[in-house]
Amino acid sequence: MTNLLWPGDDRADNLMTDAALLEAMVAMEHAWLHAIVAAGIAPPEAACQLTGVLTAGDIAAVGSAAEHTGNPVVALISELGRRVPAVPAQWLHRGLTSQDTLDTALAITVRDVASRLRQQLAGHVSALTAVIAAHRSTAMTARTLTQHAVPTTFGVKAATWLHAVLDAADPLPALDLPAQIGGAAGTMAAAAELARLRGVPGDPATVATDLAAATADALGLAAAPPWHTNRAPITRAGDALVACTDAWGRIAADVLTLSRPEIGELSENPDSGRGGSSTMPHKHNPVLSVLIRRAAITAPPLAGTLHTAAALNNDERADGAWHAEWETLRVLARRTVIAGSHCTDLLAGLRIDVDRMRANLGTDTNAEQQAIADLVEAKPSAHYYGAAEPIIGAALKRAHSFTAGLQ
Amino acid sequence: MTNLLWPGDDRADNLMTDAALLEAMVAMEHAWLHAIVAAGIAPPEAACQLTGVLTAGDIAAVGSAAEHTGNPVVALISELGRRVPAVPAQWLHRGLTSQDTLDTALAITVRDVASRLRQQLAGHVSALTAVIAAHRSTAMTARTLTQHAVPTTFGVKAATWLHAVLDAADPLPALDLPAQIGGAAGTMAAAAELARLRGVPGDPATVATDLAAATADALGLAAAPPWHTNRAPITRAGDALVACTDAWGRIAADVLTLSRPEIGELSENPDSGRGGSSTMPHKHNPVLSVLIRRAAITAPPLAGTLHTAAALNNDERADGAWHAEWETLRVLARRTVIAGSHCTDLLAGLRIDVDRMRANLGTDTNAEQQAIADLVEAKPSAHYYGAAEPIIGAALKRAHSFTAGLQ
Amino acid sequence: MTNLLWPGDDRADNLMTDAALLEAMVAMEHAWLHAIVAAGIAPPEAACQLTGVLTAGDIAAVGSAAEHTGNPVVALISELGRRVPAVPAQWLHRGLTSQDTLDTALAITVRDVASRLRQQLAGHVSALTAVIAAHRSTAMTARTLTQHAVPTTFGVKAATWLHAVLDAADPLPALDLPAQIGGAAGTMAAAAELARLRGVPGDPATVATDLAAATADALGLAAAPPWHTNRAPITRAGDALVACTDAWGRIAADVLTLSRPEIGELSENPDSGRGGSSTMPHKHNPVLSVLIRRAAITAPPLAGTLHTAAALNNDERADGAWHAEWETLRVLARRTVIAGSHCTDLLAGLRIDVDRMRANLGTDTNAEQQAIADLVEAKPSAHYYGAAEPIIGAALKRAHSFTAGLQ
Amino acid sequence: MTNLLWPGDDRADNLMTDAALLEAMVAMEHAWLHAIVAAGIAPPEAACQLTGVLTAGDIAAVGSAAEHTGNPVVALISELGRRVPAVPAQWLHRGLTSQDTLDTALAITVRDVASRLRQQLAGHVSALTAVIAAHRSTAMTARTLTQHAVPTTFGVKAATWLHAVLDAADPLPALDLPAQIGGAAGTMAAAAELARLRGVPGDPATVATDLAAATADALGLAAAPPWHTNRAPITRAGDALVACTDAWGRIAADVLTLSRPEIGELSENPDSGRGGSSTMPHKHNPVLSVLIRRAAITAPPLAGTLHTAAALNNDERADGAWHAEWETLRVLARRTVIAGSHCTDLLAGLRIDVDRMRANLGTDTNAEQQAIADLVEAKPSAHYYGAAEPIIGAALKRAHSFTAGLQ
Repeated sequence: MTNLLWPGDDRADNLMTDAALLEAMVAMEHAWLHAIVAAGIAPPEAACQLTGVLTAGDIAAVGSAAEHTGNPVVALISELGRRVPAVPAQWLHRGLTSQDTLDTALAITVRDVASRLRQQLAGHVSALTAVIAAHRSTAMTARTLTQHAVPTTFGVKAATWLHAVLDAADPLPALDLPAQIGGAAGTMAAAAELARLRGVPGDPATVATDLAAATADALGLAAAPPWHTNRAPITRAGDALVACTDAWGRIAADVLTLSRPEIGELSENPDSGRGGSSTMPHKHNPVLSVLIRRAAITAPPLAGTLHTAAALNNDERADGAWHAEWETLRVLARRTVIAGSHCTDLLAGLRIDVDRMRANLGTDTNAEQQAIADLVEAKPSAHYYGAAEPIIGAALKRAHSFTAGLQ
Repeated sequence: MTNLLWPGDDRADNLMTDAALLEAMVAMEHAWLHAIVAAGIAPPEAACQLTGVLTAGDIAAVGSAAEHTGNPVVALISELGRRVPAVPAQWLHRGLTSQDTLDTALAITVRDVASRLRQQLAGHVSALTAVIAAHRSTAMTARTLTQHAVPTTFGVKAATWLHAVLDAADPLPALDLPAQIGGAAGTMAAAAELARLRGVPGDPATVATDLAAATADALGLAAAPPWHTNRAPITRAGDALVACTDAWGRIAADVLTLSRPEIGELSENPDSGRGGSSTMPHKHNPVLSVLIRRAAITAPPLAGTLHTAAALNNDERADGAWHAEWETLRVLARRTVIAGSHCTDLLAGLRIDVDRMRANLGTDTNAEQQAIADLVEAKPSAHYYGAAEPIIGAALKRAHSFTAGLQ
Repeated sequence: MTNLLWPGDDRADNLMTDAALLEAMVAMEHAWLHAIVAAGIAPPEAACQLTGVLTAGDIAAVGSAAEHTGNPVVALISELGRRVPAVPAQWLHRGLTSQDTLDTALAITVRDVASRLRQQLAGHVSALTAVIAAHRSTAMTARTLTQHAVPTTFGVKAATWLHAVLDAADPLPALDLPAQIGGAAGTMAAAAELARLRGVPGDPATVATDLAAATADALGLAAAPPWHTNRAPITRAGDALVACTDAWGRIAADVLTLSRPEIGELSENPDSGRGGSSTMPHKHNPVLSVLIRRAAITAPPLAGTLHTAAALNNDERADGAWHAEWETLRVLARRTVIAGSHCTDLLAGLRIDVDRMRANLGTDTNAEQQAIADLVEAKPSAHYYGAAEPIIGAALKRAHSFTAGLQ
Repeated sequence: MTNLLWPGDDRADNLMTDAALLEAMVAMEHAWLHAIVAAGIAPPEAACQLTGVLTAGDIAAVGSAAEHTGNPVVALISELGRRVPAVPAQWLHRGLTSQDTLDTALAITVRDVASRLRQQLAGHVSALTAVIAAHRSTAMTARTLTQHAVPTTFGVKAATWLHAVLDAADPLPALDLPAQIGGAAGTMAAAAELARLRGVPGDPATVATDLAAATADALGLAAAPPWHTNRAPITRAGDALVACTDAWGRIAADVLTLSRPEIGELSENPDSGRGGSSTMPHKHNPVLSVLIRRAAITAPPLAGTLHTAAALNNDERADGAWHAEWETLRVLARRTVIAGSHCTDLLAGLRIDVDRMRANLGTDTNAEQQAIADLVEAKPSAHYYGAAEPIIGAALKRAHSFTAGLQ
């Protein structure tokens, strides 16, 4: 995947692409079909390998037909049915509804996004830990409301970035969406009815519930009560994604300012070959930060859209609010992964100009410090970094504990 | 183009696709190259047919390389340069900057969107005019805050829809974006410098400005001062697009409510083959309205993103805010066209159940009317449709004038 | 009005306050009452001065009771009715619905916002014209993607700001909202019925329509067909407001960057007494720009909310979407006026450091210029400002034409 | 507090009002002053009761002066200083920065919001549990995409609502914001410097950190490293608030549809005196649901604004992004509480029309069920509610566990 208008798109490679979603929808149908066979609802000859029956070549046809029913599942079932023997075809999707397949396919594909983000954030934590170790005492000026404030260290600034990254990692479990299986209207009626009519032992309601759990399990997802019109899992996933772009956007904002030539304290890797201009051979643009900031600007309204859709859910399947989620979530997820990858490169290649930091800090009297000294009629200390060490220490400790949790 | 998660995507066919943008960027480079040859800046042998030099097969390479500079233009120039003779290659893009090419390519591709929307809206006006003619006096209940209010006619309701559509048509001129040409920093310095160094007669500044105008003209776009960091053209385009989805969303909201089986006053075309369910053979879902509503829910935050980006513009090229616009505008534009096409089908196939309207209106005493009658100690009129006729008349007159303006 | 969490709130003084809205709602009821008396619908003794009957002291009671019906109009009518003689009380609001009164009151109060914004923008145009005159040739570096690009002049930059301000002025007419009068369900049924029952000469529908026009006229508003569920007037007003904050935010973004001490090309008025810090006596923060940027960040999602509400309109009065507009519009309008006032002060006190601009521009070889010179085997010009003069000229011409239009 | 344009505003009474914030800011200054006295940094005579020194009568002056520095804290300190003896005045705020006071005051006032929301959600859980108990087997039709799907029970629908409410309760801990104390630039330099200059025993950095912890503790807040430019605490709070309006909006959406007269399955309490119309005496509007829906429409973009602001944070205090948060958070928080209160009333008075549910369900053949029966050549069951019982059971179990957790 490339996208002329979203440079870097290929960094999200096959995550949540149409191909990945097609595969996930088929995986969902496969898991369910085998679950109903295993439960004795469908006959043994209904068991059939669905994996690979549809391929990327089928996407256009399914995508085009999706419009007739408003979602791609009906067309997918119909295509699958045409390519498998009669008995499996007859039993395909029985007991499910389109939303089960689509929601669960989203869950499957978002899992890969979560996994990628986990790796990225772990890498950022590690990179920042190293930066802090190297620049724990690198003096620089702190800036507030754009103006010089008091001295700080680059270690403290990087500790702030580290907290931002760790804050982004906290809600990642929200990306582990459970399977969503409820049948036509969230009651599992068809599954239970089939269990009863086919004489499956046990309470049909329990059989139906167990089927959902077995399917989720086969797909490696958590089971949950139907959340067809309770979209908190989706909004939480969106919130978790935007938490990532918030954190990286915050870092990029600093890099963009501090790499201005008049400031010159930071710069993106000059050896990367990135950041050239179409007409100005001398330029070295902080292009990774620019692209991260782009993502950070566009992400919050996408996460907001998921909330709006959640709030407008109605009945037993929403009349548009559900449909508004899918592509919104995909776009948000892919852009987040892309921004994360950009941040990885940014941190790996970040140049820190200790001399410029020192020069910008200057030898100006620190008026706050002077005021304090005057107040207590004492001479200002040589050192005005306050609790920089314990602040850095707390950030590193949190990072250590995060990293230990990954093992 | 199809999109499993945005059913109906193929209705926007090639509008603003990567292929369309590639072609538009090449058209821009072609127009400029020929303009500088015509002006005597570049030598005659620099003139070279660029159209068709790059094709859809080049998109992936350009898209992938785009990341290095943060936009696809540098890679595009480089690819073009490799495929044309040395002299044109040397003169390609001279005097332009990436933003000129990309912004102007957006303008070129948005023009096709505008043209499509004009056709759609004209069709909606025509369809609604016909509906009003047929149902001018079809009595139904008006509903406010979900409850029955007083009688109205379907003609009046459709007049409301007609106004909504006409309101959406008003700002369409905002989609006629001017060319954006300013050179490296919005001063046309390189073009003027070349004019001077090459001894082109006249004031180099005027020559440069004329070049921009000539290029715009060759592309069929309006000329304008550089708007590289004044993004009102983009926000206005976004506002115009969301005005369309607002209007269609408003219509879809009525259809969704009134096609509920308990109400049954409207329904989508039952013969379309649309609206089936994966498991419930009896269902006829109002799928066009659902898909329109989906677009209407997602559009406002996209238009809002364009405003946020505009407000964050800085310097002589924004450090991320510009980049946030491109894909946002494209997605918004394509979804708008898709929704417009859905609305065309919706209006064309809309079934109006006059009997259900009459039945739902019922014979209940109209308490407002009764209160008025009591106040003036008179007997209520048989008819309580007030100014329905002049209201409809005003809408039709506006429609007529709109349609006349199209000729 | 002050607001601890929105410093500067008093700059919007009484615009769209509850007191202003109460007065506007009463003005609407007054105009209508007198219109129905004039038309012979209500008896002459129903004519009654409503202006001043309710005062700011009544706001709390009306505001509290508003919840029972979901809007403040019913409580307002009830309070008014209690304080006027029996006949006017009986005729109050007859033929109207709550939405007529509230929407029209919004129109009345937004008019004052529009008037304030017109003054502000005219002032900005004038201030920028003067800045441009003074700094037409003040050389500085242009910056793209945060890095030095090629030389420009502060005149050109200020011309960009001027275009932004003029772009914001263009859509101001959208703030001249028409009256919204349609009766209970947008058909003017009650007004027409009263006209008929009271034997008012002429077609009752025409009488009703004329009443709406007369009321609008008495209030100094344009008349329009009922737009109770067609909310384009509201979304256009919102878009016009955010266009202002976009423009000012764009200016503030430049001031914030260029007043960084390492750059030092611009600064906010140091003699204003503004920009101090609670602990750092040496600081001079660009607080006006900070507050403008704040407004620019929060405005786009508010304008977006108005679109979402418009798209969700349904029936003959929306079940929540209408209610979502009111406070959203007020907050957006007041914040816009506040930001405009901040921008007035910002431009009035802006310090331009010509020496720092010159120093930052430096004597570096301009690589773009060199590349061009090499290409044509010539020596670079001393001057590399391209079409700065015509670009400035075009901006000033547009400003002149805008100013002339105000006379 | 009332608000003509946000009916119901008084339900949030004093939560996060200017008066509450003033008090909270004073409480923060008080706690810090006493902490520095206790630590031996300030002399014992600096200890001074600040509580009550400023009152609601001071809000206007502080609010008006807030603009000079961009936040209300400088003016607050100045007012406080004028009213306390010289020594406390000298030591007021020493070691803090404005942001510490404002952020921590937000934390204090949001705590009251959290407490209110906890009560509301507990009440909703309890109300829904009772509804489910009463209507566990009340048959009704499930609706998908507006059309009748298959049978369900009102117990299952209410279980869906119950899950929504429990999903909203999950993230409430995010509203327990920690104190935010970092001094001028997040390093606690002034506090440490004072500790050193005053000869306080121990490492000055540790003393400073302990001071922050002691202050947080005195205020009943959690301590945390400075989060002055890491705004995840704010965005998480916003996400938690919008999660509430999402849940209630989802419930309101159902009530609005199901209380349409043609459906008539639900209605808001007809004895509440709510829901009247200004002109239509017969109307009973579902006004609580309307007002909840209003809140649900406006909340997501506010939460989104908090994310945008977070992503734009830069330096050691953001130049506008911080300022954009305050009022956004307050408005979002108050509206959430108001909507929660509306939902409490809605659930308490909800009328469930079992007969209409039964009638709407009808005796139509359930085509899904028939298809299944045909497939397995059996006769359809009389009962088609599938796993309704275990689904309800799971929701009740979750509610029980939630309620137990509150004890």
